[in-house]
Amino acid sequence: MSDTENSKKIIEPSILSGFIELLPREQVAFNKMKDIIRDTYESYGFIPIDTPVLEKSEILLAKSGGETEKQIYRFQKGDTDMAMRFDLTVPLARFVAQHAGELAFPFKRYHIGKVYRGERPQKGRFREFYQCDIDIIGNGSLSINNDAEIVSVINSVFKKLDFGAFTIMINNRKVLNGFFESVGVTDKTEVMRIIDKIDKIGRENVAEELIKTGLSETNVEKILDFITIEGSAVEVVEKLKSLTMDNEEFKTGVTELEEVTKYIKAYNVEESSFAINLKIARGLDYYTGTVYETVLNDYPQLGSICSGGRYDNLASNYTKQSLPGVGISIGLSRLFYQLSAAGILKEADTSTTSKILLVPMDGTLEYTLKSASLLREAGINTEVYLNSGKMGKKFAYADKLGIKFVSVIGEDEIARNVLSIKDMKSGEQKDYSISEAVELLKN
Amino acid sequence: MSDTENSKKIIEPSILSGFIELLPREQVAFNKMKDIIRDTYESYGFIPIDTPVLEKSEILLAKSGGETEKQIYRFQKGDTDMAMRFDLTVPLARFVAQHAGELAFPFKRYHIGKVYRGERPQKGRFREFYQCDIDIIGNGSLSINNDAEIVSVINSVFKKLDFGAFTIMINNRKVLNGFFESVGVTDKTEVMRIIDKIDKIGRENVAEELIKTGLSETNVEKILDFITIEGSAVEVVEKLKSLTMDNEEFKTGVTELEEVTKYIKAYNVEESSFAINLKIARGLDYYTGTVYETVLNDYPQLGSICSGGRYDNLASNYTKQSLPGVGISIGLSRLFYQLSAAGILKEADTSTTSKILLVPMDGTLEYTLKSASLLREAGINTEVYLNSGKMGKKFAYADKLGIKFVSVIGEDEIARNVLSIKDMKSGEQKDYSISEAVELLKN
Repeated sequence: MSDTENSKKIIEPSILSGFIELLPREQVAFNKMKDIIRDTYESYGFIPIDTPVLEKSEILLAKSGGETEKQIYRFQKGDTDMAMRFDLTVPLARFVAQHAGELAFPFKRYHIGKVYRGERPQKGRFREFYQCDIDIIGNGSLSINNDAEIVSVINSVFKKLDFGAFTIMINNRKVLNGFFESVGVTDKTEVMRIIDKIDKIGRENVAEELIKTGLSETNVEKILDFITIEGSAVEVVEKLKSLTMDNEEFKTGVTELEEVTKYIKAYNVEESSFAINLKIARGLDYYTGTVYETVLNDYPQLGSICSGGRYDNLASNYTKQSLPGVGISIGLSRLFYQLSAAGILKEADTSTTSKILLVPMDGTLEYTLKSASLLREAGINTEVYLNSGKMGKKFAYADKLGIKFVSVIGEDEIARNVLSIKDMKSGEQKDYSISEAVELLKN
Repeated sequence: MSDTENSKKIIEPSILSGFIELLPREQVAFNKMKDIIRDTYESYGFIPIDTPVLEKSEILLAKSGGETEKQIYRFQKGDTDMAMRFDLTVPLARFVAQHAGELAFPFKRYHIGKVYRGERPQKGRFREFYQCDIDIIGNGSLSINNDAEIVSVINSVFKKLDFGAFTIMINNRKVLNGFFESVGVTDKTEVMRIIDKIDKIGRENVAEELIKTGLSETNVEKILDFITIEGSAVEVVEKLKSLTMDNEEFKTGVTELEEVTKYIKAYNVEESSFAINLKIARGLDYYTGTVYETVLNDYPQLGSICSGGRYDNLASNYTKQSLPGVGISIGLSRLFYQLSAAGILKEADTSTTSKILLVPMDGTLEYTLKSASLLREAGINTEVYLNSGKMGKKFAYADKLGIKFVSVIGEDEIARNVLSIKDMKSGEQKDYSISEAVELLKN
């Protein structure tokens, strides 16, 4: 190394506060989750889109809100005022409004991508994170069946992700709105906030707080009876229908809930994975019908890991066209972090997608490379150790990768035309023809 | 629609100048290419990483250059000076320097992600574009075999992408440096620039320009003889060896070229897909050994579609550790645009990954959804048309998606327990059991 290089200033390698990156072992596990979500979305006919991360600020901030304006990464370059997207919904709205003439409706799109929020750093919250969204957008109208399909997609995703039992909970904003109206609630946000504490502070304390908001005792009782309705989805619908409420919005909402419940049965979603939860509201000024939350039964502390709902109009900031839709989002980075922290994610035992490492001895490179090609052609990810060094170093490399099988190839293997494959876990070693090796490694 | 909504200000939906986004039909084709590249990278044992798009400016600009500083998207948020990455190499260098203790070396990583350059907008150049990179990083040393493996990866990628015949061209910077030194070239950049024009302006004009740089006639002749060496890789190596050059760097370079050529043969790369091209230099102050360019034989005007090389030290700005490496990059967004513009990309005939659209008639939703589940479980992406409307509208939707098969499900199909599947291209319609349908749709 020259003197100049020795005296070169070294910049401490680090990333921005609040950002994360994964080491290979975690990244491989993360990508597996991402692939399952993508494959499941595609299996239902959702179409990929991939909009720019940077958009015009006027587009992203069309529906401005205090938090968004504070958190958004916004800057000027030349004369242009631009910003990094903070979710995938606003870009979807802009995309559909811009390209409506070229899309097939209902437009079923998925989008898996990074979004950016300059939040105060805190555990499990990141400033760059993946969202995995699906939405079904109608042109003018959209059948309620789609609300049921969304539940089926969530069900398929979490069955395949295999983190144990989960419950997909739905509610309907029309039911909530109609009910609240008929019992005289004016500040819905405040009432929802109080109601939400019932599991923590109990019925009586909630009642006390509700009365302080100015509601009559009768109405408080009605609210409490309403939000504690329990039972299977079908039973809840029946109880709601039996309430004598003279409110059209409420009635429409109950009918929608009933239909969604009926269709969900047709999708073969297990009854134990699905419930109506009348305490769910989600974004109060955005959703207008069905709303969704999903919890892992054994880890309620994670909160909802997949949420969304039905909205009347996706893109009213960008077009006069009526575009009703329904969709959900999985906050994958956060979910991954939470699952790891809670010990639910079986730690990936490998930091590579390779199934086998071939290690050539002197003079066997050609045979080794040929064997590697044959394995790859059969769909087996195959790595060849190409560097010189002692055997111990090569096996240390295999161990560090966590690769399951290693085959050292000497003259002897060539003479017998086999691969001698060692199972790194059991230590067992056996000879395999290429086709036998493919069989072994496919599983 | 209320009055307020009617009078609501509509913001024209559009994206930033110099950015692109694809419509579904193009996006599906783009994703197929991206998947092929990813799968091929993984098949050779490359490991995924996914670093933040935003990094500290001091990290990204450690090795600052005029163009980079001008083009980079850099801004302040709070006290933090941050910027969007302009390539995947600088983040790789930072990543390896930061996590060296936790990585297995040689570290074979791939990274497919978006990068950002505020270039002057021009045809086929985008301010946000995908790069698909692989690099193999050694800890202290890295065998020359790896330089050959890179050629094998490029070969596999472009065979699978199937854009017709291609040539992977390599050269060696030591050969160039040693040769230039021994013929008295001081301004290598200028000489390379002149040499590069030989196919356009001819040998004599190049000679004239070279003499103007102050080189002797004898040396200009030597240069011209050198850069016009032709033949198979083996022949070029032999001709280089026959040159009587008393220069150690040159000799080392020729030996490296010879070894790489030998190993490439072992990888079974067709001779027609591979050549030594002594005019290739690539980034003059970065690469130190093998350099790569790749061209489509029938579309030379596209220039190099996959380039890279060997470097002595990946991360000298962030660590004193010696990290030699070799790698290449495919500029996927640009390549996709060029292939489309040149008409090479067979236009994707579908804008969905769904294989079939099931259309329930009145009263058959349950059977339809059950059939869809069975198809999905067999790995067939299956869409169900869930909205009401006339049959014409439903088939128009199928046409717009470009979906290949449609099955309308009535009472009759339920009675016979079949799917009646229509081939949308041939118009042919036949009955299939679920397992027969799986067979049909798998191909």
